[in-house]
Amino acid sequence: MGTLHRGRQSIVFDRRPAILSAAAIGGKKEREGPLAAYFDETTADTTFRQLSWEKAESKMQALALESAKRKAGLHDADLDALFSGDLLNQCISSSFAVRDTGVPFFGLYGACSTMAEALILSGMAVNGGYARIAAAMSSSHFASAERQYRFPLGYGGQRTPTAQWTVTGAGCMLLGQRDRGPCLRCATVGTVVDYGIKDAANMGAAMAPAAYATLRAHFDDLGRSPEDYDCIVTGDLGAVGKAILLDLFRRDGVALEAIYDDCGVMIFDLERQDVHAGGSGCGCGSVVLCGYLLRKLQKGELKNLLFCGTGALLSPLTTQQGESIPGVCHAVAIEGGRV
Amino acid sequence: MGTLHRGRQSIVFDRRPAILSAAAIGGKKEREGPLAAYFDETTADTTFRQLSWEKAESKMQALALESAKRKAGLHDADLDALFSGDLLNQCISSSFAVRDTGVPFFGLYGACSTMAEALILSGMAVNGGYARIAAAMSSSHFASAERQYRFPLGYGGQRTPTAQWTVTGAGCMLLGQRDRGPCLRCATVGTVVDYGIKDAANMGAAMAPAAYATLRAHFDDLGRSPEDYDCIVTGDLGAVGKAILLDLFRRDGVALEAIYDDCGVMIFDLERQDVHAGGSGCGCGSVVLCGYLLRKLQKGELKNLLFCGTGALLSPLTTQQGESIPGVCHAVAIEGGRV
Repeated sequence: MGTLHRGRQSIVFDRRPAILSAAAIGGKKEREGPLAAYFDETTADTTFRQLSWEKAESKMQALALESAKRKAGLHDADLDALFSGDLLNQCISSSFAVRDTGVPFFGLYGACSTMAEALILSGMAVNGGYARIAAAMSSSHFASAERQYRFPLGYGGQRTPTAQWTVTGAGCMLLGQRDRGPCLRCATVGTVVDYGIKDAANMGAAMAPAAYATLRAHFDDLGRSPEDYDCIVTGDLGAVGKAILLDLFRRDGVALEAIYDDCGVMIFDLERQDVHAGGSGCGCGSVVLCGYLLRKLQKGELKNLLFCGTGALLSPLTTQQGESIPGVCHAVAIEGGRV
Repeated sequence: MGTLHRGRQSIVFDRRPAILSAAAIGGKKEREGPLAAYFDETTADTTFRQLSWEKAESKMQALALESAKRKAGLHDADLDALFSGDLLNQCISSSFAVRDTGVPFFGLYGACSTMAEALILSGMAVNGGYARIAAAMSSSHFASAERQYRFPLGYGGQRTPTAQWTVTGAGCMLLGQRDRGPCLRCATVGTVVDYGIKDAANMGAAMAPAAYATLRAHFDDLGRSPEDYDCIVTGDLGAVGKAILLDLFRRDGVALEAIYDDCGVMIFDLERQDVHAGGSGCGCGSVVLCGYLLRKLQKGELKNLLFCGTGALLSPLTTQQGESIPGVCHAVAIEGGRV
C-alpha cells in the first residue's frame, strides 16, 4: 500500500468510505429557521426533558446517534469506533452521551471544527481497515454555551453586531464500506492560524484566516480548484467571517460567491431571527451537513461538496488573559451519489 | 489490504510504526521524584518564566515538541500530523503550543487517557500512510488543574487520602517508518465505563473499572494474555485505583502483581512527597512513558510494554449536578528494540 498523504496537509481516501446514514437534531430556534424541514427531529422544548442544559445537550447527541443507527439498520454493537466532541468543558456532552453504548470512543476537541475533524478520523479509520463502521458526531446547545462562555441567560446580556448565536443541535454520521451513495474522497487537515483577533464576540474574523489557509492548502496539495466543487461551505464563519473569506479569495483573483456559503448564515434567517452575524457552534455545521447538505448529495442535486469545519480555539480564560484567538479549519471533500 | 480491526475494540498495526524519538518535560515535584533522571528537562520554576500557569503548561508542550524534534533531527515541516490534548477547558495548552508550528493539528480530549488516544491515532495515521511522521503529545500542570477543577492554590484546601496530585509535565512522541527501535504493534480503544463513583477526589476508583474492561477486551480481541508482556502500566490510577485493578483481576484468577504498575505510583515517592494516592493528569502517563519507559524499551530492558492511558471523564459541572464519573482507558502495545 502506498502513501495516502498529499502535500503539506492533505490525504486521499482511496477506498471511498461511504456515508451509510446521518441524523440531525435541532432545537427551537432551528425549528423556526429556513432549514427546519431537513432535520430529523426538532423540539420546542430545548431542555429535551432533562434537568439541565448540559444533560439536554448530551441527550441530543444520544438522539442523533440513535436516529443515525436506526436509519442504517445498525446497532451499537456494529460500531467499531465513535469520534465525537462538543464545546463544553471536558467535552461532557459527548462522553455522557455514549456511556451506555459500549462503542469504542475517541473524544475530540476541535471547537466548532469538530464535525470535520471527526469525519476525517472516521474516514481514516474506515479507509484504513481499522473500523468496519465508524461514527462522527458533534453538538452544541445555545443555553449551555452561553452560560459557560459568556453570561447566564437570566442576566440578559446585550450582544454585539458581530456576535453569533450558538446553534442548539447535534449531528451524527455513520461511515462504512458501500458501493453507492455519498462518500468521502479526500481531506485537508488544518493548522492553527492566529491573526491576532482578540474580540471574543467576533469569532468569524478570528476563524476566516484559518478557513482561507486550509482552502488554499487543499487546492495546492490536491491539485484541485474551486471549479471542482459545486458547493463549498464553511461551518460557522457567520456573515462577518463569510465576507472576510470572500474578500481574501478576491485578492487572489478567485471569485467564490457562486458556490460558497456558510452554515451559520444558512441555518437562520439572520434578520427575522435576530441572530446578528449568524449561527455558530459544533452543532451548526454538523446539522446543516447531516440534515440539509447530505439530502442534496443523496438526491444528486449536489455532486461535489467541500465541507470546511471552522473552529475558534479560545477559552474564556485565554480571553481574560489578553490572548488572541487562534483558529483552525478542517476540510472534507464529499462526493454525491444516489443511495 | 485487509482489515486491521480485531474483535470488538482492537486494531493491529501491521506496518509497525516506529517511535523515532520522544521527550519528557517535568516540573519541580517531578524533579524531586524517583524518575527525575529520566526526564529531558525539569525545572525548579514551574512558571516556566510565563505570566500564568496556563501559559506555563503551553510552554511545556512547546518544549517537549521542540526536544522530540531535535532528538530525531526533524523540523516542524517534517511533521504531517500532530495529535494532542490536555485537561484545560477548550484544550488551550495544546492549541496555543502549536500555533506557530504550521503542523496539521488534531485536538483531542480524553482526559488523562489522552496520550494513549494520541498514540493510537498517530499509529493509525502512520500505519495507514496518511502521515509520514506524526506526533502524539499531552500535558498537565498542577497549578492550572487545581484552580480549574478544585480551588485556587492560595486557598490552601485540604486534600482527602484518595486524592491524587496532578503531574506538572508534558510528553511528546514522534512516530514514523523505521526498521529498528521500539514500535507500536496493536491497540485497544476504550469504551466509556461508568460504575457510579461520584467522589471527584477518588478518580482512581472511577477509572479502575475502565482499565479492567479495556485490558479484558485487549486480551480477548487479540488472543493475548498478561504473559505476552513484561510490563503493563496504567496512566494514573494511583495507589487506590491500582489496588482495585489488581483485585478485579484476582477475582478472575489472574495475578498481575509481578508485571503491573501505575505511572501515578511510579512518578512520586508517595510517602515522602505527600501526594496521597499518587500522581495523575494527562502529563503523568505521558512523561513516564516518554521519559522512563521508552529508555527501557530502547535498551532492550523492556521487550513488550502495554501502556494503558486512563481518563476520568468528569467536569466540575457534572460533579455539581450530581453525576457519576465515567472512565475510559485506551491501551497500546509497544515492542522494545535497540535504536
